[in-house]
Amino acid sequence: MRVSRLLLVTLRDDPAEAEIVSHKLLLRAGFIRRVSAGIYVYLPLMWRVLQKISAIVREEMDSIGALETLLPQLQPAELWQRSGRWAGYTAGEGIMFHLHDRQGRELGLGPTHEEVVTALAADLLRSYRQLPVCLYQIQSKFRDEIRPRFGLMRGREFIMKDAYSFHADEESLRQTYRLMDGAYRRVFQRCGLRTVAVDADSGAIGGSASQEFMVTAEAGEDLILASADGTYAANLERAVSLPSEAIPLPVDPCHELSTPDQATIADLCQANGFHPSQIVKVLLLVARFAEGAPHPVLVSLRGDQQLNEVKLSNALQQRIEGQGSLLQLVAMEPAHLEAEGLSTLPFGSLGPHLDNAVFAGAKTWSQTLLRFADPTAAELAVFVCGSNRRDWHLVGASWGDLTPVPPIVDVREAQRGDRCVHDPSQPLETARGIEVGHIFQLGQKYSRAMGATFTSEQGEEHPLWMGCYGIGVSRLAQAAVEQLHDGQGLCWPVSIAPFEVIVIIASSQDPTQVAVAEGMYDALGEQGLETLLDDRQERAGVKFKDADLLGIPYRVVVGRGAAAGTVEVVTRRTGEAVEMAVGEACTWLLKRVGMERSGLG
Amino acid sequence: MRVSRLLLVTLRDDPAEAEIVSHKLLLRAGFIRRVSAGIYVYLPLMWRVLQKISAIVREEMDSIGALETLLPQLQPAELWQRSGRWAGYTAGEGIMFHLHDRQGRELGLGPTHEEVVTALAADLLRSYRQLPVCLYQIQSKFRDEIRPRFGLMRGREFIMKDAYSFHADEESLRQTYRLMDGAYRRVFQRCGLRTVAVDADSGAIGGSASQEFMVTAEAGEDLILASADGTYAANLERAVSLPSEAIPLPVDPCHELSTPDQATIADLCQANGFHPSQIVKVLLLVARFAEGAPHPVLVSLRGDQQLNEVKLSNALQQRIEGQGSLLQLVAMEPAHLEAEGLSTLPFGSLGPHLDNAVFAGAKTWSQTLLRFADPTAAELAVFVCGSNRRDWHLVGASWGDLTPVPPIVDVREAQRGDRCVHDPSQPLETARGIEVGHIFQLGQKYSRAMGATFTSEQGEEHPLWMGCYGIGVSRLAQAAVEQLHDGQGLCWPVSIAPFEVIVIIASSQDPTQVAVAEGMYDALGEQGLETLLDDRQERAGVKFKDADLLGIPYRVVVGRGAAAGTVEVVTRRTGEAVEMAVGEACTWLLKRVGMERSGLG
Repeated sequence: MRVSRLLLVTLRDDPAEAEIVSHKLLLRAGFIRRVSAGIYVYLPLMWRVLQKISAIVREEMDSIGALETLLPQLQPAELWQRSGRWAGYTAGEGIMFHLHDRQGRELGLGPTHEEVVTALAADLLRSYRQLPVCLYQIQSKFRDEIRPRFGLMRGREFIMKDAYSFHADEESLRQTYRLMDGAYRRVFQRCGLRTVAVDADSGAIGGSASQEFMVTAEAGEDLILASADGTYAANLERAVSLPSEAIPLPVDPCHELSTPDQATIADLCQANGFHPSQIVKVLLLVARFAEGAPHPVLVSLRGDQQLNEVKLSNALQQRIEGQGSLLQLVAMEPAHLEAEGLSTLPFGSLGPHLDNAVFAGAKTWSQTLLRFADPTAAELAVFVCGSNRRDWHLVGASWGDLTPVPPIVDVREAQRGDRCVHDPSQPLETARGIEVGHIFQLGQKYSRAMGATFTSEQGEEHPLWMGCYGIGVSRLAQAAVEQLHDGQGLCWPVSIAPFEVIVIIASSQDPTQVAVAEGMYDALGEQGLETLLDDRQERAGVKFKDADLLGIPYRVVVGRGAAAGTVEVVTRRTGEAVEMAVGEACTWLLKRVGMERSGLG
Repeated sequence: MRVSRLLLVTLRDDPAEAEIVSHKLLLRAGFIRRVSAGIYVYLPLMWRVLQKISAIVREEMDSIGALETLLPQLQPAELWQRSGRWAGYTAGEGIMFHLHDRQGRELGLGPTHEEVVTALAADLLRSYRQLPVCLYQIQSKFRDEIRPRFGLMRGREFIMKDAYSFHADEESLRQTYRLMDGAYRRVFQRCGLRTVAVDADSGAIGGSASQEFMVTAEAGEDLILASADGTYAANLERAVSLPSEAIPLPVDPCHELSTPDQATIADLCQANGFHPSQIVKVLLLVARFAEGAPHPVLVSLRGDQQLNEVKLSNALQQRIEGQGSLLQLVAMEPAHLEAEGLSTLPFGSLGPHLDNAVFAGAKTWSQTLLRFADPTAAELAVFVCGSNRRDWHLVGASWGDLTPVPPIVDVREAQRGDRCVHDPSQPLETARGIEVGHIFQLGQKYSRAMGATFTSEQGEEHPLWMGCYGIGVSRLAQAAVEQLHDGQGLCWPVSIAPFEVIVIIASSQDPTQVAVAEGMYDALGEQGLETLLDDRQERAGVKFKDADLLGIPYRVVVGRGAAAGTVEVVTRRTGEAVEMAVGEACTWLLKRVGMERSGLG
């Protein structure tokens, strides 16, 4: 391909719309253009990268027996109503674009395809003989993001590979899950990426076990907690750890303490010499579900710990049946109480024994608190807590005497420095990551909801066991830029580079240079190397800068040496430059590119 | 691939939802499944067909220098407002799905991409040095069809290849248009299809010249008019012809004739001995545009001719400026007049001299008739027409005396049997076709509207010249079935077949047959033939039936002959069966499939 015919427009300056380096570079190098918030055109160079990533994904999916298919992007609301996810995905914080067709029927634009594929399985799968089976597709998906940003990282239209497997039993599911795990590791390795696999929250997708694959990079939106020995790694949303030991509170008879102007844990400790680990702090929240009354929620947590809202959301979703999806979880504020016609509460002096009576007469809320205690709070024998009277706390309180221990659930956020569960001598460390893959053991959640059953060898009807497995193809392309770039621009690995070699004519006025360059361009192309020829009427310096910016792995400069039959071959990643005879350069490139193409070298 | 792992579910009976044979066969053979009206899953076999068609399309597009890209499916309303098409595509009969995002901004789901690509061109193209350039993409498009039907023929979500070219002048546009014409012919030929290229209406896309490619088939929705000599072919919407000669009316002084109960041309002729070609018939319609007042329209047409509404719509769109797109064109009815507060009109006795005064006082309509005369009517020296008085006609009327000749526009529908324009000795014949491709010379319509300009060699700013070019990829797959099938099922050409060979184990209980079949399956696969192995525990008859239904081009039956080292090779299209030694069969298949793969054999 000739650069003059490539519609290449590079930018010298960083575009104002981009915050992170990969986004800036993709815009500057002419790989993408923004059409609307979170919506991009993939220009020809980017499309070649995406096609290469897709080809690697296809090969690895095919190698484990998955079948490629294409499911519709427009999905009828009925399917999502049957799984119980329509409201959660379209109301409140829901991220599904949705519309009415000309007949007035509701449709959603697929952010994921569990519903469609489960309905298909219910239709096609009858017998254990057809199992296991795994379907996958590569296509654009849609999310009405609250804050689309970072280019392709958090877009509203983006390319995903998603796969769905169906099984007769859980062991078969686990086996495919392990195969997928291996295939995913190969995909990322072949794309030239350093990734880490982490325990993950299953979120709105549901299911029992799930694992994310993170490209480690400073600009990552996800916080990873990992042990230094590499044995444990988890997304912050899901991470577990051993909390630090609490410092025991001297056992005193329980008594009230006047605490004016001590509404925070820090104030309370400073004024009275307490350690935060001696305090039970109480958080009040309001949980709204798709159906039924909102619930006031009371969480007890040790004073030195932070709430993990994802863990609490999961606990709420599990506790509350028959109200559909949890749509919103917010801290309770005086304005909420006022709107419910309730008196205000002594925020800052709240204790775990807060009486349900304070919610009597609420206009729309359930009048009973949903209570949870984190183990860190539940394990304290004696503690300090609010007295539920403004500006007074209790010192020496204990569960049982004060109030029964509420249901104990891990809702605590693991922190850097916490001890690891698998080996308390290892402290947790943090890193930032970009999620590029996620695999789930879904179990029977969707097959039960949608009646997707099969007949077992014994002639019994059972719900299918399911797994689902995603790779963010367009996000992966940008993550590769984030991890692999330098001050000059992109640095594509050969396996996913838009072109493998760029031949540059230093001076287009010099007929010898032109002839040598055209000859090499033809020769490399005939040998199957994907080659660009920079034939533009530009100064050599401009062409070199653009070649670095585009990140083509190997650059051949046809300059003054052309008359003597030599060219310069530059390796983009290292900057190493070697003068070679033309024939030698072709042989060398063919060998090097050949080795690196698989991404496994 | 083993059939046992293919998720293959074939149906014995025709599904009730399908009307035409290709739709029935694709459902029965397990290629597609319906999710909602006009929305289908492409199952693994179908996906392989679509990938093969896409690969052929890519090769041919790349061969003429087009660059592959991917444009977004979600498109901001602003872009469509700038081109003036938003209302036409979303209101009234508009076929664009549209929605609001969480910020309340309007987005459309792309049925086509002129707006997005023109905005992109305005952004990227600056200089004549960058021209010509052509971008293409293959992706799912959306149409909120009034009547989705015939499976993939008229779906609401379907796969298209669309390409857009940009030029410095019209001659360059014509050159790319000719290149595309050639590429399209090669695509269809390589896919094994008989197609005919026809003159077409440019419809809502606009532009000066356009040509459709039709797969000829009885079930086609389009009517093609063509000369027997193959020189002329056009879509009915666009076709031109010489009308039959009118039979002259004896020249009589103009006089009124009482015509009670003679409201139709047929009645009038029968009662008075007129010939329909002696009559000027008058049609009243109402045209509604995106903006401004609806217009009453009066069309004069020779009595033996029919109105072509597409031609009239185009004429209206051209005549009316500043009111945006034509949204609706309907015959005027008494109820319309009543709603406008107008007296009724003498329908059945209307004449071309109907006075504008009858629309004075209309509530919402423009009060002036838009008048058109087809040449057939305008050319009559003397004619019969309505008198605008109920039950009275005029005999011997003439233009000028009666009323000035209105603007003359071809709005007449060409008919089978009409004489061809290029050679009056050739009568027009009709055939039915399925449109699988359409190429347009757009001119500067979009570049002007959206300010997409470039700087010419002379340093002047000009709007870009544009072309656009579409292929219905998923429709083409079904059109191939419609054209190529028989009583037993599908008959894929090798070039787009999901698999090239199917090896059938006649009796899975026979270890010799199993061993020979597995050996051949491996050997063919190693030679690069795309091979299915029917390893299911089914009767041989079931497997043969399924193989015929799926339409795999070559079938190898490993049966009783296996013990003696022979197999039967059956050609699906002809039914020809030949007994061969195993090695000979492999060689023969390799040679045959190799020859047919390119589709050019």
